[in-house]
Amino acid sequence: MGGDHGPAVVVPGIARVAELIDLVGVRYLLHGDRAQIAPVLERCPAISGMVEVRHTEATVAPDAKPAHAMRRGAGTSMWNAVESVRSGEARAAVSAGNTGALMAIGRLLLRMIGELERPALVANWPTARGVCAVLDVGANIVCDAERLVEFALLGAIYHRAVHRRGAPTIGLLNVGAETQKGHEDVRGADRMLRELGFGLDYRGFIEGDDIAKGVVDVVVTDGFTGNISLKSVEGFARFFRSELRAVLENGLLPKIGAFIARGALVRMAARLDPSLVNGGPFLGLNGIVVKSHGGADARGYAAAVRLAIELARSDFAAEIEAELSRFATLSRGAQSQDRRSIA
Amino acid sequence: MGGDHGPAVVVPGIARVAELIDLVGVRYLLHGDRAQIAPVLERCPAISGMVEVRHTEATVAPDAKPAHAMRRGAGTSMWNAVESVRSGEARAAVSAGNTGALMAIGRLLLRMIGELERPALVANWPTARGVCAVLDVGANIVCDAERLVEFALLGAIYHRAVHRRGAPTIGLLNVGAETQKGHEDVRGADRMLRELGFGLDYRGFIEGDDIAKGVVDVVVTDGFTGNISLKSVEGFARFFRSELRAVLENGLLPKIGAFIARGALVRMAARLDPSLVNGGPFLGLNGIVVKSHGGADARGYAAAVRLAIELARSDFAAEIEAELSRFATLSRGAQSQDRRSIA
Repeated sequence: MGGDHGPAVVVPGIARVAELIDLVGVRYLLHGDRAQIAPVLERCPAISGMVEVRHTEATVAPDAKPAHAMRRGAGTSMWNAVESVRSGEARAAVSAGNTGALMAIGRLLLRMIGELERPALVANWPTARGVCAVLDVGANIVCDAERLVEFALLGAIYHRAVHRRGAPTIGLLNVGAETQKGHEDVRGADRMLRELGFGLDYRGFIEGDDIAKGVVDVVVTDGFTGNISLKSVEGFARFFRSELRAVLENGLLPKIGAFIARGALVRMAARLDPSLVNGGPFLGLNGIVVKSHGGADARGYAAAVRLAIELARSDFAAEIEAELSRFATLSRGAQSQDRRSIA
Repeated sequence: MGGDHGPAVVVPGIARVAELIDLVGVRYLLHGDRAQIAPVLERCPAISGMVEVRHTEATVAPDAKPAHAMRRGAGTSMWNAVESVRSGEARAAVSAGNTGALMAIGRLLLRMIGELERPALVANWPTARGVCAVLDVGANIVCDAERLVEFALLGAIYHRAVHRRGAPTIGLLNVGAETQKGHEDVRGADRMLRELGFGLDYRGFIEGDDIAKGVVDVVVTDGFTGNISLKSVEGFARFFRSELRAVLENGLLPKIGAFIARGALVRMAARLDPSLVNGGPFLGLNGIVVKSHGGADARGYAAAVRLAIELARSDFAAEIEAELSRFATLSRGAQSQDRRSIA
């Protein structure tokens, strides 16, 4: 029921995924208002056999505070979707609804892995070399050095699970490449990553413009900076596309030129369309929860569903648990050494 | 001597500015190595009468630490340029060199206005509605609520001086629009701006994608977030342009289409070229110092020089001083009231 469009996007999104040959056999539970879902489902008869509607009229409001969603959320469509993961009935949950509420309900019902405090929200972003994972993009507003190191570990495991290739490269977002740059937390995380290693391919500080260059596979930052810088890029990308369109529709020559080159222009728009890389998982929960952009269209929602399926088919949950306990041991060791060297 | 290209960009940059009818009569002091400057000047005979070279071979290294530049910088080209503003010989200084060093030398030689601690660095960014001013974009890594409020005041005065129109709108960059969103400092600044007003047209929190929409004239944020989000956008803009070029050069139809529409495409590239809005002043110094992008070309450098001239011709320095003392009185009043209400 979530996002700007509700079932009008969720159902056609699933229909797109169901057309993909390697994703046949996946089944879907749709939590929400049957009266709103049924008419959309009727227009997608191909998926009627794979879909089961779990009726509820209650929903989480888009502007509900997370604490309120936790206390009063039981029985809402969002709650029931996450609950179906907890009970083992579903392998993953996808929602385009209220991000803060989804995270809060996820934490409450699924609990965090190990000693993690809060999940990290990942964004997948198109770059000159493919796609990179940026985290956190909004779940953790204030992050100390240890949180940033956890993000590096979570991001590396996530990237391996989704892209199925070894040791991704990691960069820590900062205002400059030199070790003295930035604030205390980012410098502390840099030191820990350099000294303890954690088996990561850590490349040090990167700057904002390095993200689009694709210099690393995983970009680590706090949720405040990550959220704002990626939304800034989204806003600019939308502006750039609308300027391009305006310029090509203004005058006869541009119109003719755009008509002749339209295939290429459509391909480019597709390549740079953030909705194609829609879908950000919350990392660190005991279970898979993927957040879709609230404004995503059916194609974007399909991308989020595909991502959830990829993650459900990988063993990244078990890997996260193993890596994090290794990290806890390593950083406890480093802390007790610190104390000794001070004494 | 600063930036990636030194005199090779500075001299032709000035030549571009000198062609503009309303900027005739401006004179330039070029601080740097005569042996490097003279050959470039020979190729721009039109400006030889407006330019005076002040020879020095010493420069500030691009990677020099600010503290080092302050202790050892005397006699470098950057130092001499700022010193010429301090002595009153020049009305403004422009440099494409080391940002941290320029700020440190600016603070040391020119000193801050009133009780300000550090200058704020402004970026001018193209938006769907024109250009907005974003500050701080890197001079102040950690900012408390009062610093953010100072940025709002400085940004408003700057915008009025450059665009010559009344009360600019102000937005505070955050991860959401609701008052409970974000960290303590940004919420504190929001409260102060709402309650004390300061005569500003404050519009509350804005999100990253609101920057490109142009919803406000002045975007306020801390230097860490500002630097990273704007560099992220620059990186993406470069990526977008290179993708567009690649797509239009790949295949016969796109090539023909691009050739026919080339006028429109060149106009768009120009409109979205960050170098056209190059030039960020340090606000809060007793004197005008404008930082050009290190990688700017002659056109970009010309934009920074024009901005410096605009500021020198406005009375924004005096206005900053008056507004800041008003702010100090207001916020001291508010603090003592706070103390009373606690007692």
